[in-house]
Amino acid sequence: MSYKGLPFVTVWVEYSEIATVMKSIGAKQIKRPDGSDVYTLPVVSDPNTGALITDSIEIASYLEKTYPEKPIFPHNSEALIRAFDTAFTDLTIPALKFLIGRSAEVMSPDSAEFLKDARSKDFKLSWDEIVSEGSKRQMEEHLEKGHNTLYEWYQKSNGKWIMGDTFSYADIIVASYLLWYKRVMKEDEWAWIGSLNGGKWVQVLEDMEKECNLA
Amino acid sequence: MSYKGLPFVTVWVEYSEIATVMKSIGAKQIKRPDGSDVYTLPVVSDPNTGALITDSIEIASYLEKTYPEKPIFPHNSEALIRAFDTAFTDLTIPALKFLIGRSAEVMSPDSAEFLKDARSKDFKLSWDEIVSEGSKRQMEEHLEKGHNTLYEWYQKSNGKWIMGDTFSYADIIVASYLLWYKRVMKEDEWAWIGSLNGGKWVQVLEDMEKECNLA
Repeated sequence: MSYKGLPFVTVWVEYSEIATVMKSIGAKQIKRPDGSDVYTLPVVSDPNTGALITDSIEIASYLEKTYPEKPIFPHNSEALIRAFDTAFTDLTIPALKFLIGRSAEVMSPDSAEFLKDARSKDFKLSWDEIVSEGSKRQMEEHLEKGHNTLYEWYQKSNGKWIMGDTFSYADIIVASYLLWYKRVMKEDEWAWIGSLNGGKWVQVLEDMEKECNLA
Repeated sequence: MSYKGLPFVTVWVEYSEIATVMKSIGAKQIKRPDGSDVYTLPVVSDPNTGALITDSIEIASYLEKTYPEKPIFPHNSEALIRAFDTAFTDLTIPALKFLIGRSAEVMSPDSAEFLKDARSKDFKLSWDEIVSEGSKRQMEEHLEKGHNTLYEWYQKSNGKWIMGDTFSYADIIVASYLLWYKRVMKEDEWAWIGSLNGGKWVQVLEDMEKECNLA
């Protein structure tokens, strides 16, 4: 929305209250891989149209249709960027466990408690295992491998963005993860991300912040 | 090459002779997921430049750079299409075992023998297990699920191709797999593919054959 220049207000919701708040406004659930339903954030409520949209990629798709200026799926790239979203998620998933652990450290006690319970169940692991040194080494191994692949892709683009000189939602996906890492990682962990692939990732994050007028 | 209108001659090589022939012309090996090296086809030898390129996506990338007319990575989409290639492969891999079994049935006895040995080792399964009814049901299950996802992506493209009205290497990837299925599947199995997603896949194959002047 910042990139498209759309005015918006962010309402922060504690983890423990997501289901209650989303139910109260009539938001849709999404399917977990096992087929069960779950309330998630982000959700966008658009007073211009009355639309209420759950799930990042569906929100992006809705905004693109409704507010086509400054396209985020340029040159009919929505199908490819959905495939990119899937491929990128597959690259990063094995690293997320430990980062969810780090996330709990920057939340309110209530949200942290909720997240610990919920993710221990999701991963079928104790919280101690999720934040263990072994889990951290797994994160490093998978993030390094994943970013090497991602870097190879960027190298094929003839420009600073995934689509060369054209900014797109694919870059927003990448930069959003980087922003999350930066927010929850310890200083030395974030410095390590900065050291990968010739400093590409700090650059992508900075470029995105400029492009979206967040800097 | 057909799409770009480049003249070419195909040299068919028996499976059992791939390593010998590729070594003799000085082709590169590619890395298996376990890190070991292996000679694979296709390989392109370009007499105009002396280049010798292994691996489908690298061949596509080389041809695009060397012969940019009629682009197959339009609008700087090479990075996205490489991610698509990865995501598409991840969707189809669990279905391939049985189709490799079917492939052995249309090969020369020599190649079939080689393939049976090599893939039994790769999959750590006996050949009977690879071509079993259980393996066939796995293929059906995974192809149906994979094609549903692929169909969702195509639905987001506002046109018959992945990039809407613009043909690209992403469609060549999809159609190449379809061509393989059609060539090795039994009649009822191919008819089943034809019945998925409102007949989308027979249409994609036909459209590609027209677009590449293969029909």
